[in-house]
Amino acid sequence: MRMFRNDYSEGAAPQILDALVRTNDEQCVGYTEGDPHCERARALIRAEVGRDDVDVEFCCGGTSANIIGVTGMLRDWEGVICTRDAHINVHETGAIAACGRTVLPTTDADGFLSPDEAERVWQFQTSTGRHMTRPALVYITNSTEIGGVWTRARFDAICDWARSHDLKVFLDGARLGSALTSDESDLTLSHIAQNVSAFYLGGTKNGMLFGEAMVIADPMLKEAFPYLVKERGGLMAKGRLLGVQFEAAFERGGNPCEAGRSAAGDTDSTTDGAGIASHGERSEALYWRLARHANSCAYRMRDGLVELGFKPYGHSASNQQFFVVTPEQERALAQATGCETFYVLDDGARVVRFVASWATSEADVDELLELAGTI
Amino acid sequence: MRMFRNDYSEGAAPQILDALVRTNDEQCVGYTEGDPHCERARALIRAEVGRDDVDVEFCCGGTSANIIGVTGMLRDWEGVICTRDAHINVHETGAIAACGRTVLPTTDADGFLSPDEAERVWQFQTSTGRHMTRPALVYITNSTEIGGVWTRARFDAICDWARSHDLKVFLDGARLGSALTSDESDLTLSHIAQNVSAFYLGGTKNGMLFGEAMVIADPMLKEAFPYLVKERGGLMAKGRLLGVQFEAAFERGGNPCEAGRSAAGDTDSTTDGAGIASHGERSEALYWRLARHANSCAYRMRDGLVELGFKPYGHSASNQQFFVVTPEQERALAQATGCETFYVLDDGARVVRFVASWATSEADVDELLELAGTI
Amino acid sequence: MRMFRNDYSEGAAPQILDALVRTNDEQCVGYTEGDPHCERARALIRAEVGRDDVDVEFCCGGTSANIIGVTGMLRDWEGVICTRDAHINVHETGAIAACGRTVLPTTDADGFLSPDEAERVWQFQTSTGRHMTRPALVYITNSTEIGGVWTRARFDAICDWARSHDLKVFLDGARLGSALTSDESDLTLSHIAQNVSAFYLGGTKNGMLFGEAMVIADPMLKEAFPYLVKERGGLMAKGRLLGVQFEAAFERGGNPCEAGRSAAGDTDSTTDGAGIASHGERSEALYWRLARHANSCAYRMRDGLVELGFKPYGHSASNQQFFVVTPEQERALAQATGCETFYVLDDGARVVRFVASWATSEADVDELLELAGTI
Amino acid sequence: MRMFRNDYSEGAAPQILDALVRTNDEQCVGYTEGDPHCERARALIRAEVGRDDVDVEFCCGGTSANIIGVTGMLRDWEGVICTRDAHINVHETGAIAACGRTVLPTTDADGFLSPDEAERVWQFQTSTGRHMTRPALVYITNSTEIGGVWTRARFDAICDWARSHDLKVFLDGARLGSALTSDESDLTLSHIAQNVSAFYLGGTKNGMLFGEAMVIADPMLKEAFPYLVKERGGLMAKGRLLGVQFEAAFERGGNPCEAGRSAAGDTDSTTDGAGIASHGERSEALYWRLARHANSCAYRMRDGLVELGFKPYGHSASNQQFFVVTPEQERALAQATGCETFYVLDDGARVVRFVASWATSEADVDELLELAGTI
Repeated sequence: MRMFRNDYSEGAAPQILDALVRTNDEQCVGYTEGDPHCERARALIRAEVGRDDVDVEFCCGGTSANIIGVTGMLRDWEGVICTRDAHINVHETGAIAACGRTVLPTTDADGFLSPDEAERVWQFQTSTGRHMTRPALVYITNSTEIGGVWTRARFDAICDWARSHDLKVFLDGARLGSALTSDESDLTLSHIAQNVSAFYLGGTKNGMLFGEAMVIADPMLKEAFPYLVKERGGLMAKGRLLGVQFEAAFERGGNPCEAGRSAAGDTDSTTDGAGIASHGERSEALYWRLARHANSCAYRMRDGLVELGFKPYGHSASNQQFFVVTPEQERALAQATGCETFYVLDDGARVVRFVASWATSEADVDELLELAGTI
Repeated sequence: MRMFRNDYSEGAAPQILDALVRTNDEQCVGYTEGDPHCERARALIRAEVGRDDVDVEFCCGGTSANIIGVTGMLRDWEGVICTRDAHINVHETGAIAACGRTVLPTTDADGFLSPDEAERVWQFQTSTGRHMTRPALVYITNSTEIGGVWTRARFDAICDWARSHDLKVFLDGARLGSALTSDESDLTLSHIAQNVSAFYLGGTKNGMLFGEAMVIADPMLKEAFPYLVKERGGLMAKGRLLGVQFEAAFERGGNPCEAGRSAAGDTDSTTDGAGIASHGERSEALYWRLARHANSCAYRMRDGLVELGFKPYGHSASNQQFFVVTPEQERALAQATGCETFYVLDDGARVVRFVASWATSEADVDELLELAGTI
Repeated sequence: MRMFRNDYSEGAAPQILDALVRTNDEQCVGYTEGDPHCERARALIRAEVGRDDVDVEFCCGGTSANIIGVTGMLRDWEGVICTRDAHINVHETGAIAACGRTVLPTTDADGFLSPDEAERVWQFQTSTGRHMTRPALVYITNSTEIGGVWTRARFDAICDWARSHDLKVFLDGARLGSALTSDESDLTLSHIAQNVSAFYLGGTKNGMLFGEAMVIADPMLKEAFPYLVKERGGLMAKGRLLGVQFEAAFERGGNPCEAGRSAAGDTDSTTDGAGIASHGERSEALYWRLARHANSCAYRMRDGLVELGFKPYGHSASNQQFFVVTPEQERALAQATGCETFYVLDDGARVVRFVASWATSEADVDELLELAGTI
Repeated sequence: MRMFRNDYSEGAAPQILDALVRTNDEQCVGYTEGDPHCERARALIRAEVGRDDVDVEFCCGGTSANIIGVTGMLRDWEGVICTRDAHINVHETGAIAACGRTVLPTTDADGFLSPDEAERVWQFQTSTGRHMTRPALVYITNSTEIGGVWTRARFDAICDWARSHDLKVFLDGARLGSALTSDESDLTLSHIAQNVSAFYLGGTKNGMLFGEAMVIADPMLKEAFPYLVKERGGLMAKGRLLGVQFEAAFERGGNPCEAGRSAAGDTDSTTDGAGIASHGERSEALYWRLARHANSCAYRMRDGLVELGFKPYGHSASNQQFFVVTPEQERALAQATGCETFYVLDDGARVVRFVASWATSEADVDELLELAGTI
């Protein structure tokens, strides 16, 4: 059975892999420095975000993107405000500190950075002048660590707060595809691009072998990125690989096919294809179609599990779904579905995570549900 | 009136200053590297702590000592567990992160690092292996940021916890003099020296112009200190200044005089001198006498303020005393006594700090109390 | 015409790419943490180097490997001795300094670190104790920046020197395949593995999309690597990609086909295949066959250019070949062949580099020579 | 006999020490943050350098000043060009790298950074864009490591070069007093202040217990200094100590006495006093008088040694004097005078250094010369 452990268990979506194979013999200059694929991908992304004045740069993965994005907008004594469960605060082995900068976590527990908590941290950190790390940046993630999807209102609130305090905003978009194609998202890519200092379009968790595309409006980071990506080890010699993948992800029209593995590999892709087609955007870029497909599978899974009596943890309208289960269920589900345990609650209950991706099919979900019904 | 702002408002205690003046014309090799004063101070401190096998090194100040002590016992991806109000977490402008290491704060709110909270942080940080900063060190402060004095039982508990988890222990002793001469302390210097990996005897806040003496049992820090103190800018060219001051502070017998400015400068030092003498250790080193004197003034102040109806914040048996006051009282007291505001409580009340030092006299305290009685 | 700019102009060798395609749909745990491909690749590499007690780890690229390998074996105040043209000293944007460590270049001008120069630097750096960066590591590259191939005698000399000074040795193997298959190399992989603290088998420049495999004997780096690779952004979520590629590169027997693109794509691969076959190791791992093929093309190119009257710069028996040309020749050759300029000599002459790779065919070389004959 | 080992063998010049004693009992706010002595010292230094728009900040020592000044004007991937013997390149245990920045040494062998060599390094470092550390700052020292005094022409040449390449200039003034009062200096303090981005007036080596005063014109460093000095451990709690010392050093008129220990302590200060008086500036600040006195002793020593047949190494018109001696002479001189060995020349000859300071008297020099005559 297909596991629901995470969205980076497989290789690449077939369309992405195909592009890599198709272009494999081409000779390109290295390091993303002007090869036609990177240049085309840059143009496509600029068009997608609706700004000509942004820089588009690539790096090898999410931690690399966070290192460069965050430290590239901070001076030595400055810090970044984020939620306590933020990836940079928890899951990157102190990567920001390793580059000499300080992470300033709030107590927000739902994954969304709130203006109130940001204000509290800011007040505290600026209360004794140069004796404390000066906040200069806000870090948010869409979707959040526990699958939350930012609404426009919520997004505007934190951006407004940051602007009013002269702080920059960095958006970690490792799962931005899933977030923006969520059926509960009213936030658009261009609105994000208009309001943050920098953000990235995650590739690794949305059907690419690897790679993230950074969109940079901030002048300080525009200057920093090309150097930092090399200095911090995130620059790929065969930079064309990033170009080729993002080109395939954002090229429209030329790839009018269905999304993901299920569509490519299944003999019966009608339902799935129809589901995507019903959205009415045949020319939608592959990047969005892959994410939309993952969400669609995640909703089917979520609704099915709820129907079976499983209790959701929080509310997610993205490709990660969290449920509260007993330790016995945890064991059985982990074994059968690959789901991972995120938290142990005070009463001993477990929060487990199921993740759908471009590679998940409806049939996979149905198999999961059938199995879960027996646990 | 003498202000009670902090314990580093004046220059040096007269005995320390005198030693500097007396030795001013001597020629010494630089950098604490073998001049007779540093060597003598090292020997005195080794005797004081009761261990021949420790290294004793000097640096210019507390932040420098914390940088060297903490980062010298951590590898790049390791972190230090401490309370949320720890100096290294709050008041040093991200100095530990600036050296590439991560601070891992607990939620302990009383300044004492508890084994329970340390265990919680440790469990969390080791839950996903190399994706998270690995805790390798525990940082405690005696006295704590809000004046708390570690008991032996409490100290043993955290040291035992650390030992059982194979973590090292670093004790920030910026105010260790006041802590160990507290009338509520049952902890001894030699017991500390037997149980921590490294600690320092703070000079800056106990009557010296500047300087801290690090006592090092840990082999990793023994190797690191000489290099780090230079690399991190904490090594003084005129290293003898540190030797001279710590020599004066820990030489016994030769300095049978009373402690501090009040004793040296006041015409009427009988009471004060008697108070010290009554402790029955005429040969006690100046370092302890200065601290004991500061505590004595602090208790007189504390008891007097309580008698006047002021409400203590927490309980301090050291030279820093905290009180809860109204905003009106805060303003009047700050103006009159130099006390600083530490916290604004949820109900709007203020926590202010009064600090006594070697330079405080009983008369100063009485003047403070008289004034406070009118506020 | 195929350019001779570098050995990372194309994607992957067909056998590598094929392995990626073939395994694309498999689900694997992430981060190189135990998936079957990484585990198999580790076992193959351990067998290849002839040591069971080494750790084998993977990261995304050469700069990443250098960052982790070098800083993982240095404490904060320690430095690495290398030649002045070493990649870490010149072409990595200060990556080692960015991690807080110091590069200590010698004046060796031929790319080989000599014991004499290492001794000079060591003497100097240890002459004033802790006031200077302490050398703790030696960094060498095989093949060198200008194509030099280390002999066993030369290699033993620097390893002996390092051992006698209690320094570790790190070997940057970005082009180790080409070096060890050079017809002038008498050095073996197992001899290297027996004598250095750590080294890596470069994938990026030998037919993989990306990736380097670090072989670690040193206990300090064994402990460090898993954390540093995450903290420094070099860990890939889809770690299996590294496993799959190195598995394909070092699996024997199962891949009895010819090396590289030319063999795979050319209709007439007889000569090439025969050339490889004549080496008498049909079961030689793909990694070596790809490199041997690159060398073979490079020699043909070198000999042809010499015959045409071009003057070699230094002597290279590896896949990079350097020639001294006039500015006019430089322009014409760069345009026609993609060769890059490395140095401008004092007399205004240029040193240009031609690089052959797994993707180069004999026909490509002949085309180059024909063209060069007209310049 | 007084040793000539260095200019930081003694404590403080009597006038400085006296100021510390005189102000010892005053209560001041900490951290150089607004106490009257720091404020007065700032005003005096601004007047001395002839610019109202500079920031004047203090830190505990020279390495600290170099760390803050250099890294405060560099972004993460930028580097500083300096001579190979520059203090930051050799004698600070990799302090700049420890803060993540790269030192880019030239091959200038005489201590003076030349535009030609700076240009060569700049050309090289900018030849492959972001793959190499970008030079952004020039670091010079006056007087140089081997006692050289910058002329105005030389100084203007390097500043012009830096300006034309959009690089900043940092001047390490650890011995700026000696340099500017040299009888061969035609450079003025105000000219320096008009042309560099930042520099410091060294206190440690010119009669203070410790401390350097940074004069900052550069906006980037103005913003950085207050934070970096705390984050890097260079901020003193008793900041007033720095204020008091620099106030005493730059206050005019009120201190019409002679310079240094010899003048203060010798019964016969006539000659010395006359020598200073003859310069015709009775109101010259103590800072300059101390330095001028050190130079005067150094010249007497130099001329005397030359007369005795000793051979100078290079030419110094400042308080450090270098001579080439035999190994036998080296031993005898080191023992008798404390002189230190700087270099061992290729022929086995030694370069030894004699240093005069505010604490040196004419009688001390004569004693040295008498002794040297017997060696």
